[in-house]
Amino acid sequence: MTPEPVFDVAHLGHVEMLTDKPEASLDFFVNVFGLTESGREGDSVYLRAFDDYEFHSLKLTAATTTGMAHVAYRCSSPQALLRRVAAIERMGLGLGWTDGDLGHGPSYRFRDPDDHIFEIYFETKKYDAPPSERPALKNQAQRTHRRGACPRRIDHLNLLATDVNAIRDFMTSALGSRVTEQIKLNSGALGGCWFTVNNKSYDIAYTRDSTGTKGRFHHVTYAVDQREHILEAADIFLENGVFIETGPHKHAIQQTFFLYVYEPAGNRIELANAGARLILAPDWETVTWTEDERKKGQAWGLKTIESFHIHGTPPVVTKP
Amino acid sequence: MTPEPVFDVAHLGHVEMLTDKPEASLDFFVNVFGLTESGREGDSVYLRAFDDYEFHSLKLTAATTTGMAHVAYRCSSPQALLRRVAAIERMGLGLGWTDGDLGHGPSYRFRDPDDHIFEIYFETKKYDAPPSERPALKNQAQRTHRRGACPRRIDHLNLLATDVNAIRDFMTSALGSRVTEQIKLNSGALGGCWFTVNNKSYDIAYTRDSTGTKGRFHHVTYAVDQREHILEAADIFLENGVFIETGPHKHAIQQTFFLYVYEPAGNRIELANAGARLILAPDWETVTWTEDERKKGQAWGLKTIESFHIHGTPPVVTKP
Amino acid sequence: MTPEPVFDVAHLGHVEMLTDKPEASLDFFVNVFGLTESGREGDSVYLRAFDDYEFHSLKLTAATTTGMAHVAYRCSSPQALLRRVAAIERMGLGLGWTDGDLGHGPSYRFRDPDDHIFEIYFETKKYDAPPSERPALKNQAQRTHRRGACPRRIDHLNLLATDVNAIRDFMTSALGSRVTEQIKLNSGALGGCWFTVNNKSYDIAYTRDSTGTKGRFHHVTYAVDQREHILEAADIFLENGVFIETGPHKHAIQQTFFLYVYEPAGNRIELANAGARLILAPDWETVTWTEDERKKGQAWGLKTIESFHIHGTPPVVTKP
Amino acid sequence: MTPEPVFDVAHLGHVEMLTDKPEASLDFFVNVFGLTESGREGDSVYLRAFDDYEFHSLKLTAATTTGMAHVAYRCSSPQALLRRVAAIERMGLGLGWTDGDLGHGPSYRFRDPDDHIFEIYFETKKYDAPPSERPALKNQAQRTHRRGACPRRIDHLNLLATDVNAIRDFMTSALGSRVTEQIKLNSGALGGCWFTVNNKSYDIAYTRDSTGTKGRFHHVTYAVDQREHILEAADIFLENGVFIETGPHKHAIQQTFFLYVYEPAGNRIELANAGARLILAPDWETVTWTEDERKKGQAWGLKTIESFHIHGTPPVVTKP
Repeated sequence: MTPEPVFDVAHLGHVEMLTDKPEASLDFFVNVFGLTESGREGDSVYLRAFDDYEFHSLKLTAATTTGMAHVAYRCSSPQALLRRVAAIERMGLGLGWTDGDLGHGPSYRFRDPDDHIFEIYFETKKYDAPPSERPALKNQAQRTHRRGACPRRIDHLNLLATDVNAIRDFMTSALGSRVTEQIKLNSGALGGCWFTVNNKSYDIAYTRDSTGTKGRFHHVTYAVDQREHILEAADIFLENGVFIETGPHKHAIQQTFFLYVYEPAGNRIELANAGARLILAPDWETVTWTEDERKKGQAWGLKTIESFHIHGTPPVVTKP
Repeated sequence: MTPEPVFDVAHLGHVEMLTDKPEASLDFFVNVFGLTESGREGDSVYLRAFDDYEFHSLKLTAATTTGMAHVAYRCSSPQALLRRVAAIERMGLGLGWTDGDLGHGPSYRFRDPDDHIFEIYFETKKYDAPPSERPALKNQAQRTHRRGACPRRIDHLNLLATDVNAIRDFMTSALGSRVTEQIKLNSGALGGCWFTVNNKSYDIAYTRDSTGTKGRFHHVTYAVDQREHILEAADIFLENGVFIETGPHKHAIQQTFFLYVYEPAGNRIELANAGARLILAPDWETVTWTEDERKKGQAWGLKTIESFHIHGTPPVVTKP
Repeated sequence: MTPEPVFDVAHLGHVEMLTDKPEASLDFFVNVFGLTESGREGDSVYLRAFDDYEFHSLKLTAATTTGMAHVAYRCSSPQALLRRVAAIERMGLGLGWTDGDLGHGPSYRFRDPDDHIFEIYFETKKYDAPPSERPALKNQAQRTHRRGACPRRIDHLNLLATDVNAIRDFMTSALGSRVTEQIKLNSGALGGCWFTVNNKSYDIAYTRDSTGTKGRFHHVTYAVDQREHILEAADIFLENGVFIETGPHKHAIQQTFFLYVYEPAGNRIELANAGARLILAPDWETVTWTEDERKKGQAWGLKTIESFHIHGTPPVVTKP
Repeated sequence: MTPEPVFDVAHLGHVEMLTDKPEASLDFFVNVFGLTESGREGDSVYLRAFDDYEFHSLKLTAATTTGMAHVAYRCSSPQALLRRVAAIERMGLGLGWTDGDLGHGPSYRFRDPDDHIFEIYFETKKYDAPPSERPALKNQAQRTHRRGACPRRIDHLNLLATDVNAIRDFMTSALGSRVTEQIKLNSGALGGCWFTVNNKSYDIAYTRDSTGTKGRFHHVTYAVDQREHILEAADIFLENGVFIETGPHKHAIQQTFFLYVYEPAGNRIELANAGARLILAPDWETVTWTEDERKKGQAWGLKTIESFHIHGTPPVVTKP
């Protein structure tokens, strides 16, 4: 019998994003993108989409640079957390336990092979809406405020990596992630890899960093309920002078309807809608795309924009 | 430590529906509702939505009556299937193994406390699209044909039961389902209960059969990608003379956008869209609605239609 | 040869609405419904949808009652205005010229047979967006602010009348309106009549006031760009405690997708979307609906809500 | 006093399109684009969208080349038709009367300065739906069949011209069209011009033919009710191997949401949705875009695709 799938990790929890323009970034995320502030501590502001059930899904931290400080996943149980810690320690990638954060209890930190920082935790702080944010329907975390693009919840993130094959081995072993789709380059190396720990078609993707730099961030994505909401968001971004990089259009890979913008500090942010598409098969077979297939562009023919292969945060400093 | 959540059951697989108007029902499901026939055997036609990954999600069987013959769930692994069988046998509800069916391998059958027939299986027949049904994007099971309402995949079903509290105990023990929402009547008894085995907000619901009859079927639901597709489907049903019972509107419970119709033999069918809402929390706390809250009607005020509490299949025969 | 169609009146301009809860009504229209204040004078606040090209489309006036103070149409040219005035004076319904208003030049006032006040004008004040309201695209009157339901423009209004047949004669003669659809009661009298002066399927409708009271107001409607925007607005109304009377659903008559709410003072307000439907035929033949056809309810079967036949503003005072 | 606006021409009626692949073109228009055949005569098939009120809006004619044979507008009345004929004859552009066609009565033909053939008519054949095409709602011309992209009605066409300034003078004098938007090149010449005879923001557009060839066709456009229908159509085109040139995206000019494809013979076809945007002002002031503004691309930043400036039908034959 083949080994059973692992269900130790429940879902992507939050991303800590660095900004060197903290005021402008915060104004963007609250007033244009439509997140809600749920707390502050030190140089960080905690932000959430209206139906994220936890305290926060984005920790925005003022820094001298941009990019991602860490990404966090919530485990399925205390027991599952310990199993994952043991597995990661066996892999020799562990960094150790933290005391937790405003939004969750103790977490275990580790590095991926490309030096991005991860943490996993179980104890969390569920969002307790203050009276002004109480929803009309009690099966929702917070009221639908309809301020800005107003996404429902965090969806996934995309990291750049110098060696996607190494990442593939890492994610499946460390988190028990399943590889739902991937790009195989003519060289045989992976150009990109899409992973999930649950029924979403992916919660993290890695694509190859053509600059050869380690630890960079490509984008974080929030989900909206309908494709039309992305079209409306495009107008909101247009009216507010936000740089729209590409979209709206439909990805061939994973079929999500997408829109990419840069927040004021340059971090790439995506809005996406997956329709009713879920990965329900416990034995889903990885879909592999070739370089030739990728040259066709996105689902309806839009060519992948050049900056998509180059722009990441922090920017790569070219030495003279 | 609390017990860990169970992930043995992966997802709802299919429903076997009985019809005493087999030709009219088949015409409805194929040409108006937009499913595709994938096979026939005996008195049954096997049907599927365009992105169901398995051979079928609806087995339509000619009979002298209507309602549901059985409902099937796919397990996460062969090992998980055996664990569930053991648990169900301990509960004394088992009926035994079958040799399988056109669409899947051996299954284990059992009854719920209201005499509905369930089966669980792992070995399945994944849909292998013939050339005329091959999709343009290879991460999809079948081409998007856009014939009729054209839903993406099976979503959930709703059964009637005389004792919903007994069902609650049964589903959580037998399948490891989690109760995401429920209705508590003023009498203290449960009026309805929504269950899930994965990240969908529910894959089965039970509501109280006010006629006191056992084993009846309320509806089966298919998911469309966008709410707008439900509005379009309403026009398709209108143009084709299909009886629209209620909707489109938004449920307060589970927040799905819905539309209910009767197929020609009288079985109730739903189209729904859940937006980006998923149950990601492994420790989701059941949301409980009171009778008073239910009197407010659906999310935007539509009163629940009277037939919703009465009409089920097979119809209840009143003796003179 | 049949007489040529009249094109003297260009479009519905604005409605003056009375409120006995001026602060609550204003808060509703600005923060929940999503209009923008463009001026104030005396007891009135001037409001506009983001793509109304004139200064205002709603004049909200504090009063001791509710209902409509007047409705205004803009003519196609100064010459056309004079032709209409001459026609109305011949009908003996004229009230005379005004000096104009904050939002337009001199207007000619008259009464319909049910004592509603009309005015027609040509000279207008086009909206000149202040810097904070300048749109990103210069073919739009004001920026798309996406605050509240955020409709694009005024669409139509509905008045109650004791004798709809008399109204039919009046509107076609006074404004040169065309009757696009109507309801003929079994008694032979008209139960409702839908009129247009341009390519919109209607800009004003009259329905029979079953209370026999003259001069009452049924609702005013603003248009949104997509049906999905009406679904979003329903959530906005839900979250803000606005009374939703009926909808969203699709009208059989005129096929508009609709949602009806009451603003805080009790005036009925509609959001609607007509899709791409326009009346382009210069010789459109009136579509007549019978009482029996109306009993089928709206397009997808929703029964017309009882209050729709009763509630108008001002309310009818029943004397003891 | 300024002259009054002219309302002699009611709306765009139909386009006669040439195809050198008649079978493939017809299959595309009926089964993929979703028009309905209403008649045949000689080398022509008459096609219509489901809510076009006339017999046809597209006359597809087998030929040895591609492009447009003629475009037709319907006048507001017999009197208005004669006024337009007189005006056109004064301009010296008349070609004379025809006996009519399957879909309409006598028409008067003339040339624009770029040698495109126009005709105007009043007597028309309204579509009389056969039983299988009768709509459920009697205010609609034909049932909503939802076959293929299934647009509601013809919307506009776009022609190429060597001298857009000359076209501007012609259209305003010949048809009484109003110029709603235009592109002014740095040279001072017009690069494009958008015209309307009614409340639609445009029914015909001309853009400069950079090849210097006369009489070419750029595209014809049909309107769908919702933007989401264009996203669905994109999937339909993808699944059917139709070449998608560009879109879906939102035009900056006129703000329509668009999608461009080539039918099998190479004629460019557009689907568009204008939302609730109408030109209601009888004194609308032309919006002028500069070359610099056009360089920003479409509304949300999509660069105008190169083929949009080159591809027209018939193709330009380059001599060796």
